[in-house]
Amino acid sequence: MIIVMGPQAQEEDIQRVSDKLKEWGYDSHISRGVERTLIGAVGAPEGEKESIAEQLSRFSGVDHVVPILKPYKLVSRESQAQTTRVKVGEVEFGSGQVGVIAGPCAVESEEQILEAARAVKAAGACALRGGVYKPRTSPYSFQGLGPEGLKLMVAAREETGLPIVTEVMNTQQIDLLAEADVLQVGARNMQHYDLLRAVGQTDKPVLLKRGFAATVQDWLRAAEYIAAAGNLRIIMCERGIRTFETQTRFTLDLGGMAAAQLETHLPVIADPSHSMGTHELVPQMALAAIAAGADGLIIEVHPHPDQALSDGPQSLTPASFHRLMTNLRAVAQAIGKEL
Amino acid sequence: MIIVMGPQAQEEDIQRVSDKLKEWGYDSHISRGVERTLIGAVGAPEGEKESIAEQLSRFSGVDHVVPILKPYKLVSRESQAQTTRVKVGEVEFGSGQVGVIAGPCAVESEEQILEAARAVKAAGACALRGGVYKPRTSPYSFQGLGPEGLKLMVAAREETGLPIVTEVMNTQQIDLLAEADVLQVGARNMQHYDLLRAVGQTDKPVLLKRGFAATVQDWLRAAEYIAAAGNLRIIMCERGIRTFETQTRFTLDLGGMAAAQLETHLPVIADPSHSMGTHELVPQMALAAIAAGADGLIIEVHPHPDQALSDGPQSLTPASFHRLMTNLRAVAQAIGKEL
Amino acid sequence: MIIVMGPQAQEEDIQRVSDKLKEWGYDSHISRGVERTLIGAVGAPEGEKESIAEQLSRFSGVDHVVPILKPYKLVSRESQAQTTRVKVGEVEFGSGQVGVIAGPCAVESEEQILEAARAVKAAGACALRGGVYKPRTSPYSFQGLGPEGLKLMVAAREETGLPIVTEVMNTQQIDLLAEADVLQVGARNMQHYDLLRAVGQTDKPVLLKRGFAATVQDWLRAAEYIAAAGNLRIIMCERGIRTFETQTRFTLDLGGMAAAQLETHLPVIADPSHSMGTHELVPQMALAAIAAGADGLIIEVHPHPDQALSDGPQSLTPASFHRLMTNLRAVAQAIGKEL
Amino acid sequence: MIIVMGPQAQEEDIQRVSDKLKEWGYDSHISRGVERTLIGAVGAPEGEKESIAEQLSRFSGVDHVVPILKPYKLVSRESQAQTTRVKVGEVEFGSGQVGVIAGPCAVESEEQILEAARAVKAAGACALRGGVYKPRTSPYSFQGLGPEGLKLMVAAREETGLPIVTEVMNTQQIDLLAEADVLQVGARNMQHYDLLRAVGQTDKPVLLKRGFAATVQDWLRAAEYIAAAGNLRIIMCERGIRTFETQTRFTLDLGGMAAAQLETHLPVIADPSHSMGTHELVPQMALAAIAAGADGLIIEVHPHPDQALSDGPQSLTPASFHRLMTNLRAVAQAIGKEL
Repeated sequence: MIIVMGPQAQEEDIQRVSDKLKEWGYDSHISRGVERTLIGAVGAPEGEKESIAEQLSRFSGVDHVVPILKPYKLVSRESQAQTTRVKVGEVEFGSGQVGVIAGPCAVESEEQILEAARAVKAAGACALRGGVYKPRTSPYSFQGLGPEGLKLMVAAREETGLPIVTEVMNTQQIDLLAEADVLQVGARNMQHYDLLRAVGQTDKPVLLKRGFAATVQDWLRAAEYIAAAGNLRIIMCERGIRTFETQTRFTLDLGGMAAAQLETHLPVIADPSHSMGTHELVPQMALAAIAAGADGLIIEVHPHPDQALSDGPQSLTPASFHRLMTNLRAVAQAIGKEL
Repeated sequence: MIIVMGPQAQEEDIQRVSDKLKEWGYDSHISRGVERTLIGAVGAPEGEKESIAEQLSRFSGVDHVVPILKPYKLVSRESQAQTTRVKVGEVEFGSGQVGVIAGPCAVESEEQILEAARAVKAAGACALRGGVYKPRTSPYSFQGLGPEGLKLMVAAREETGLPIVTEVMNTQQIDLLAEADVLQVGARNMQHYDLLRAVGQTDKPVLLKRGFAATVQDWLRAAEYIAAAGNLRIIMCERGIRTFETQTRFTLDLGGMAAAQLETHLPVIADPSHSMGTHELVPQMALAAIAAGADGLIIEVHPHPDQALSDGPQSLTPASFHRLMTNLRAVAQAIGKEL
Repeated sequence: MIIVMGPQAQEEDIQRVSDKLKEWGYDSHISRGVERTLIGAVGAPEGEKESIAEQLSRFSGVDHVVPILKPYKLVSRESQAQTTRVKVGEVEFGSGQVGVIAGPCAVESEEQILEAARAVKAAGACALRGGVYKPRTSPYSFQGLGPEGLKLMVAAREETGLPIVTEVMNTQQIDLLAEADVLQVGARNMQHYDLLRAVGQTDKPVLLKRGFAATVQDWLRAAEYIAAAGNLRIIMCERGIRTFETQTRFTLDLGGMAAAQLETHLPVIADPSHSMGTHELVPQMALAAIAAGADGLIIEVHPHPDQALSDGPQSLTPASFHRLMTNLRAVAQAIGKEL
Repeated sequence: MIIVMGPQAQEEDIQRVSDKLKEWGYDSHISRGVERTLIGAVGAPEGEKESIAEQLSRFSGVDHVVPILKPYKLVSRESQAQTTRVKVGEVEFGSGQVGVIAGPCAVESEEQILEAARAVKAAGACALRGGVYKPRTSPYSFQGLGPEGLKLMVAAREETGLPIVTEVMNTQQIDLLAEADVLQVGARNMQHYDLLRAVGQTDKPVLLKRGFAATVQDWLRAAEYIAAAGNLRIIMCERGIRTFETQTRFTLDLGGMAAAQLETHLPVIADPSHSMGTHELVPQMALAAIAAGADGLIIEVHPHPDQALSDGPQSLTPASFHRLMTNLRAVAQAIGKEL
């Protein structure tokens, strides 16, 4: 960390910072410039740096404090150069094999989920998604079938062999969702820290969606919560951020996704369905995500989008998903990956 | 709701929409323009409109659907013209009396919280804030004292008479926080719907912070969750939104606050501390919020900000809080309010 | 346009709106719902709709006005279904052939621009970019070589045959840049309306960058300015928007790019260099843009990025550009395009 | 500036950076930590720092470069502690006296501008605003009366004595607007650098609006362009930034305004009209801006807002402006200022 003193800082201000750093166990070095004095501090104890930096910024004469080390450690690529592989069914996310998770936004009926499962399996998806608990912005919207929905997912798994991916909204649901193969933490819960710790204490892979107002740094810190609780089987998922643009529902931040891949060894996938909000743009963004280096995709597919109880407009039909998978395979191959 | 047909829409497309609307119980009317046909639909059943609009937008020939009614009802000013009054201690938020809630970000020790409580009481605060469970972006930061912290808050209340305001992060904590006078739902939990429903089932006033990526509409829908569960003692709190600007920690959206007051009958207050992130800008923004018509404020005050375990840089000292209260009183009076 | 009356609107308010619409030449129809009355208005004179809508929104009893038709016409895909082809050298942007414009941010010396031109030509670029007038955020940064720079660009064209693309910052420069083959309007000038009109009066192709805070709708309106002045040879260029994310310099909005392609018949390309701000992320984003359906790319290439006078960190070396072109060809082919 | 080396940096990488710094005239100091090495560099030549930092960030082994000094100098409060006073008519912006500039968005007719001028004068405004050249997002909207409009402004000044403030959109208009008392540079032109230099060469006060996607730092650099050309009579104007929130037209960033006042000695005012986009919220935001410490305001007032050719919805009537001025005076007084 570097402490930048203001132009009016007195000698005693500099001394006070320097003494405090020593007391906290840092080695420090003072560089006196014509206009500013800088104090470099190295070798500090992990884990308290942020609060130390905050405190120092209040010291008399201090202009600001520049942190140097990353606030996440276990998930950082500095701590592990090779991409972690997370196995879901027959695919290893992070291995160069591109995995596609597909299915409806919400489980609505036996017929619907079975039809969806068969269709996505036939097209080459590696796992089945489907919400049984749904976070909805309005209290008057459909909130999911709950345990009944999970049973229908399990039946779909039995028939198709596809592992099931479903969202967990609070810590109590973890036990209720014991049958799930992958637990998804939704964008609105990315900073629901109890939930992060709780899924970190399970042995299931966790699909961690990026909050729509979370920076890449925030997202990595959220992953660190899960990792710090003992679970490193994390699949990160970029699903669009909120910006001023309203032509698409959210702005799919593929640059942020690629930047995250530089920072973390965890596999990172993309969700073109929630970000676009309309099926018309999903195929292009799915292809773009793969070309940008995504380790996989999660895509909404509904047998009858015009009857869907939630997110119908963004769901692909089985036929359009099938076409898309063919194109995805071609693009994956073009960049030396397999799907 | 108005269904806007695309320029290529066929007569049969128009008929299909019209038939479906009838089936769902709407009265519809078709306006045929030179370039477009519009279908107006009125008289629909409450609560399913959003999913109906979503479904219609998938119909052949439909360009887009324009909703007309608000997606929230109980909290809307259309449903109640007069501002709801929420009593906290001796102040009624929403009554024209400006309430100031103050105290440290987190409870750290008996000495700290008592000293803070005495100081804010002396300066005229109406309630004491203090976190005992803290949501932190890093798993390695101080996470709060938990139940022990609450006991210290209670002791501070006993001594000063100030009601206590503290954050609840999950549904299990509601029982643990039975002693609290006001339950705060934090920005990161604004769309934690289980929690909203759960605080909606208590009889305590709820301080609902706006998510930092939540539109005013999202925020009002979150309040509707609480209201729909039976609790209308809600105090809305604008605490800054995330924008591209990094000179301040968040962008305090006083225009959004004022716009919310037009839309809802609930009292709305502002949090200048978390939004600014530095004590240097807190007084100006506190004054601005009152001038903009805020029904109150929540401000961080710490007896020794340079030793705070969290959010030290944005905390006011007791002395600066005291000065601020004097200025706040003058501004409140200038716009015909009382503090 | 639809006029949505407020719940308290009186019969006379409705009548006043209706009369005014008639006076302005609209046909209107009134739909009376239980809670709201809607007035649909069709057949209005083009070009004044926005100010009419603004005026109506001030009428007593009016809640808000919903526009139906697009505020741009000439550039809209509704006005022309087929994508416009804009020829630059041997490539037709918009034809299914992907064009790549490459070269340094700024022209710095004869050696630099010639070396760059040879390298990008050899790798398969279709045009040479290079700034001779540079908009810089700081008045103390390098501002470009001016006319001298243009001469060097012309020399590079003579040697390599590559058409030259350069930025025009004000109307006076249009004559000075008579030798340029394509005039670029930069992001900071996207709403510099005099400039838009002036390039619209030339017969040169115009590369119109999206302003970094411009919605897709704003961007299309800016193109409409050029088109309305008589020039439809416009290449739209997505170059990143400003969001809260700082891990990349800007957020490349490929979803917005794809959405723009649905709205306009003009070809749309992407600039991965300025949006990412670092060469480490440029190749992934270039590949992603092509997979998303971009009609081309503009990429910064500098023979010696570590000596560049501007934007060195985001420039590719000739070797890395060469590798990228090979990969771009593979991805273009995978989606049925040619490069 | 501090150069942060990556964890894999070699000794020779460190040496290369160190040598280069010496060559450029910097004094440098190397701090070797357990995980990272930092190189502090002080004493560099002004004006080239940004490009030097960019170049260094490309060096082998360098992780990133942290700038220390501000990229603006003349307008910085470090260079001048006391707020600059800019006289407009009888008010000195920056002196503790709050100035209010008011008038219609655009000059439309003699009757309109005279009526407006009399009304704002009577209510206590210090200057008359009115656009004669209007930047409009659509080419089909009203674009201003041009020179004819200016004559009407001059007539209004003659009658009322109010100095006139009008927008200049390009360098050619500067001569045409020789009669204006204050030249306004609009938000869309904040990075129109030729224009900044050109108004910097006049002797008129310049009202510099913040671009709606400009950071406070960008805005200060834009002011530095004007200052570097010789004109320090600059009034900064916060007018709202673009965020995800659409309830208001823009988000008025009063925190950014207050932060700017810490950074620069120039006076800073606020424009509540353009930011809110609706007259219903203008008074609250005007009051808030004054309470936040604004040195003045610019407010749209139109004698007949429902007939305005542009921005009618956000204009105050003379009567509501009159009421607002009374309230503004009370708030200004409450914080020890004069209006």
